[in-house]
Amino acid sequence: MIVVMRPGAAPEQIQHVVDLVHEFGLKDHVIYGTDRTVIACLGDKRMVEKDAIENAPMVEKIVPILAPYKMASLEVKREKTTIAIGPEGFRIGDVKVGVIAGPCAVESREQLLETALAVKAAGGIGLRGGAFKPRTSPYAFQGMGREGLELLAEAREQTGLAIVTEVIGTEQVKLCADYADVLQIGARNMQHYPLLEAVGKVTTPVLLKRGMSASLDEFLLAAEYIINAGNPNVILCERGIRTFETYVRNTLPLAVIPALRERTHLPIVIDPSHGTGRAQMVPAMSLAAVAAGADGVILECHPNPERAASDGAQSITPQSFSDLMGRLRPVAQAVDRDL
Amino acid sequence: MIVVMRPGAAPEQIQHVVDLVHEFGLKDHVIYGTDRTVIACLGDKRMVEKDAIENAPMVEKIVPILAPYKMASLEVKREKTTIAIGPEGFRIGDVKVGVIAGPCAVESREQLLETALAVKAAGGIGLRGGAFKPRTSPYAFQGMGREGLELLAEAREQTGLAIVTEVIGTEQVKLCADYADVLQIGARNMQHYPLLEAVGKVTTPVLLKRGMSASLDEFLLAAEYIINAGNPNVILCERGIRTFETYVRNTLPLAVIPALRERTHLPIVIDPSHGTGRAQMVPAMSLAAVAAGADGVILECHPNPERAASDGAQSITPQSFSDLMGRLRPVAQAVDRDL
Amino acid sequence: MIVVMRPGAAPEQIQHVVDLVHEFGLKDHVIYGTDRTVIACLGDKRMVEKDAIENAPMVEKIVPILAPYKMASLEVKREKTTIAIGPEGFRIGDVKVGVIAGPCAVESREQLLETALAVKAAGGIGLRGGAFKPRTSPYAFQGMGREGLELLAEAREQTGLAIVTEVIGTEQVKLCADYADVLQIGARNMQHYPLLEAVGKVTTPVLLKRGMSASLDEFLLAAEYIINAGNPNVILCERGIRTFETYVRNTLPLAVIPALRERTHLPIVIDPSHGTGRAQMVPAMSLAAVAAGADGVILECHPNPERAASDGAQSITPQSFSDLMGRLRPVAQAVDRDL
Amino acid sequence: MIVVMRPGAAPEQIQHVVDLVHEFGLKDHVIYGTDRTVIACLGDKRMVEKDAIENAPMVEKIVPILAPYKMASLEVKREKTTIAIGPEGFRIGDVKVGVIAGPCAVESREQLLETALAVKAAGGIGLRGGAFKPRTSPYAFQGMGREGLELLAEAREQTGLAIVTEVIGTEQVKLCADYADVLQIGARNMQHYPLLEAVGKVTTPVLLKRGMSASLDEFLLAAEYIINAGNPNVILCERGIRTFETYVRNTLPLAVIPALRERTHLPIVIDPSHGTGRAQMVPAMSLAAVAAGADGVILECHPNPERAASDGAQSITPQSFSDLMGRLRPVAQAVDRDL
Repeated sequence: MIVVMRPGAAPEQIQHVVDLVHEFGLKDHVIYGTDRTVIACLGDKRMVEKDAIENAPMVEKIVPILAPYKMASLEVKREKTTIAIGPEGFRIGDVKVGVIAGPCAVESREQLLETALAVKAAGGIGLRGGAFKPRTSPYAFQGMGREGLELLAEAREQTGLAIVTEVIGTEQVKLCADYADVLQIGARNMQHYPLLEAVGKVTTPVLLKRGMSASLDEFLLAAEYIINAGNPNVILCERGIRTFETYVRNTLPLAVIPALRERTHLPIVIDPSHGTGRAQMVPAMSLAAVAAGADGVILECHPNPERAASDGAQSITPQSFSDLMGRLRPVAQAVDRDL
Repeated sequence: MIVVMRPGAAPEQIQHVVDLVHEFGLKDHVIYGTDRTVIACLGDKRMVEKDAIENAPMVEKIVPILAPYKMASLEVKREKTTIAIGPEGFRIGDVKVGVIAGPCAVESREQLLETALAVKAAGGIGLRGGAFKPRTSPYAFQGMGREGLELLAEAREQTGLAIVTEVIGTEQVKLCADYADVLQIGARNMQHYPLLEAVGKVTTPVLLKRGMSASLDEFLLAAEYIINAGNPNVILCERGIRTFETYVRNTLPLAVIPALRERTHLPIVIDPSHGTGRAQMVPAMSLAAVAAGADGVILECHPNPERAASDGAQSITPQSFSDLMGRLRPVAQAVDRDL
Repeated sequence: MIVVMRPGAAPEQIQHVVDLVHEFGLKDHVIYGTDRTVIACLGDKRMVEKDAIENAPMVEKIVPILAPYKMASLEVKREKTTIAIGPEGFRIGDVKVGVIAGPCAVESREQLLETALAVKAAGGIGLRGGAFKPRTSPYAFQGMGREGLELLAEAREQTGLAIVTEVIGTEQVKLCADYADVLQIGARNMQHYPLLEAVGKVTTPVLLKRGMSASLDEFLLAAEYIINAGNPNVILCERGIRTFETYVRNTLPLAVIPALRERTHLPIVIDPSHGTGRAQMVPAMSLAAVAAGADGVILECHPNPERAASDGAQSITPQSFSDLMGRLRPVAQAVDRDL
Repeated sequence: MIVVMRPGAAPEQIQHVVDLVHEFGLKDHVIYGTDRTVIACLGDKRMVEKDAIENAPMVEKIVPILAPYKMASLEVKREKTTIAIGPEGFRIGDVKVGVIAGPCAVESREQLLETALAVKAAGGIGLRGGAFKPRTSPYAFQGMGREGLELLAEAREQTGLAIVTEVIGTEQVKLCADYADVLQIGARNMQHYPLLEAVGKVTTPVLLKRGMSASLDEFLLAAEYIINAGNPNVILCERGIRTFETYVRNTLPLAVIPALRERTHLPIVIDPSHGTGRAQMVPAMSLAAVAAGADGVILECHPNPERAASDGAQSITPQSFSDLMGRLRPVAQAVDRDL
């Protein structure tokens, strides 16, 4: 890190900072500029509470140099990670773009199987569906629980699709891991550290959604928690951020794809359903995500969106999904991928 | 809610929406305007998945009319709630403004007691301190655990201050409730619903921090979760939101105080430490918070901020805290409150 | 619009609002719901200062129903507008996607012609380049002025490219219109109304950039200003919005493409250079923009970005531009467009 | 500035950056760290297009050290600037807090004089009122023009209040300066550089509003434009920023007060009317602004807000204004100021 002193810092104030730097196990390198003195701190101490030095007299600011994560970074592993998911072993992160679709919540056997068959027929590789739902309102449908997991497993048996389901508390990790092929950590749980550690202790791949106002450092540190706990199979998922915009539920920042590629080896999946919150924008943003280099797309698909128990406004029908797949394939091929 | 149809919606498309409205147990009231038809939906069904109607053909948008929360709202309880906290029974929400201060994390007996005595001497009513720390990085200090709780209890015994400590997982609710006077739910856990329900099942007051990009509806729905689970003693805490601004760690939107007063009876506490992230801005924003009508202020205070194990950049010293208290009192009195 | 009264509004308070509604030339339609009374206001008065009613006693909120713009809207003109630009009459908004590229600022004859020839060779249809530069700092390069315009005209003569240049004040509208094929209104001037009116009084097409925190309503109202003043040839340009994100200079919200298509007939161009601020992200976001349905892309291209007088960090080289064009074409074709 | 190289940068890539640094007239200072090489660049060249170096191979990022403004900074002038405004020479920036109030737009002689007399009677020192209105919609009331200015001058004569009025184009600078005591630059014009230069060429004090998504650097650079053009009498005004929040029209970030105090000597005024957009929040935020150390407050006040030609929703009545003044005074005194 680099400590920038205010103009007019006295020699003893600079020395005080140098002493703190030493105390933290770092070496100092002081540079006297025209207006300001700058202290470069050398050594690999990511964990130091660097901000604290900001409190020393006449310190203007602290500039971190090292990324705070390590195992998620390209510095540790340069080649892209691919992760095998589901009974057919689709490798997410490889040349083929994986499309995962399904209802927000598992509501019934009919709803789920109808969707699963349509997803499979159109070329999807995964089935999403929530058995435990984190709902903003205590009065909203909270999911079918274990019964939902059993329906998902049945759908996998019938279709060969990989099952992706959200785990909302440490209590359910074991149960969900027994049924699912991919454990989803929702955006609202991205910084729920006990949960990150719990999914880090199983081997099931994890789809980690970025929090709606998380920085990339925070996102990759959340991945680092999981990897650090023992599970290297982390798939990153962008699902939109909260901004001032009101014509969408969230703003989908696709530049996150090249930005993450510069920082990490982990596969990147885009969620245009939450990423916009509006069914009619999902096709355009799915096409854009694939063109921008996403390794996968995860979509909400419901046979009857108007009557969905949750997230109907952003769900597309199986028919729309099938049409979209027909349009995604040539775009994937145009960027040297495939579906 | 109100359903706005697009211009040119056909009679059968309008009828289709009316049918959906009936299906959801609501009454319709159709208004034919110059450009658009609007369908007002009558009846008290907060829980309906209204967004789904947006998916019906030719629907332009849905406008909710009712607030989605109930027990947290002024419609159910008009007089301000006051909540007794700590061994001395200070009532937060009453005329006196309660000031709570202490270190981000409990680090040692000396650190904690020195701070506690200073907080008490300056007129504070509560001591904050984390025993379990939700840290962005897996490599950062994670807290002293039970030992930290024991030190907090000892500090209470010596000072009479109410103990405020964060609970980061359902596993710790019982343990923390055994020691603390107020259970804090951190901003990153505001929508961790299993945790909200768990603290809803104890009687210990809860300090609920607003998520850094949560809407007021989401914030009050989180409070509703806790109340709905059985614990009416919820204290709302604003700790800053994430915006494009970079001179602060978070933007502290004090207009939330009058905005919450229009919506809820719950007490409102402001956290200028996280709300700015910069120790030197804490005094000005504490004064502003009290002038704007806050029921309480919660601050980070550390005897040696430069060496704090966490959040040093936003911690003030006991001496600064004491000076600040001397300035807060006349402002509180100027707005017909007191400290 | 719809006026929502607070719970418990008295009959005379409701009547007072009804009277105001009449005073504003609208008809009222009062609906008495379970909790709240709602007053629908009928009639086409877009210009009424509706917000003012919010000040009436016991009014909770005002919900606008009509879009505030008219001539820019699909309600007035349903088919897409195409606009001919440049000596070769390329029609932006038609099937072919138009790619415009060039340096941020015109710096020299060599720089400009080298770029122009490369843009033309790679299949671009327009040359961008600023002669008058709106610079954040008064100490930064402010542009070559009229000399820059002359160089642009020379480049057009040599290449047949349409010239796009920014006009930063009413004083330069005439001068710029004499030289350029498209007048650009920069993001920082999107709400500079005298300038909007001035470009509305010429016939030269206008490329209107969205302000970095403008809502879609504000963006389309800015277009409305220009159309209303007499110039229907408005091209909308998204160049990124300001959010909390720091790995980009701006966040490029591509969902604006389908969102604008639902609202307006005007052509839509995307600027991935300003939209990210980082040269290495420009290719991915250009591909995404075309896949999402953009009518055009506008890029910064400089023969020597490291030494560019402005915006070097987001400029790509002519070689990168040529490579990108080769990748954009198949994506355009995959979504039934072409370059 | 500091250039951070990516891990693995080759010696010739580092040398290439060093060469660029020299080319820009700066001295280099290379530091070889454990993971990365960092190049500190010494010398006072604020105007260099530093970002361009980001384009050099293997450069990870550029960290600016110097603030980009100079004359607005504390480095050039350490004592607070005070500026005399109006016929009675009130000094804004001095101990007394100046309260300015008046209608958004001048609508009629009666409206204006009634307001002016009330503002004066309650202890205000300035009268605001727009004669030229920058309106989001071309169909909205655009102001009374010169006639409005004459009414403002008449109000000054009757009351002794300083007249504050907005100038929206270079064409009106001379005219407005003939009538007004303070020229207001609106938020939407904060980066309209020809206008900044035009008001920099008169001596009338300028109230410069921060753009709704401007950074502090951009805000102070706008001030620098005016000072650099010859007018040192710049009053900074915060009027709220655009964030994801929807219960307010803008989010009022009062921490800007201590943040600006660390950076500039210019007086700071807060606008809680635009800063919230809601009349009922104006009192709380005015009190907070004064407690946080504002040098002035500027408010919208209208005798009949429900019928205001603009901004009625955020205007308070003369009676509310008078009440508020009675509450502001003790808060000002509590923080060692006065009204």
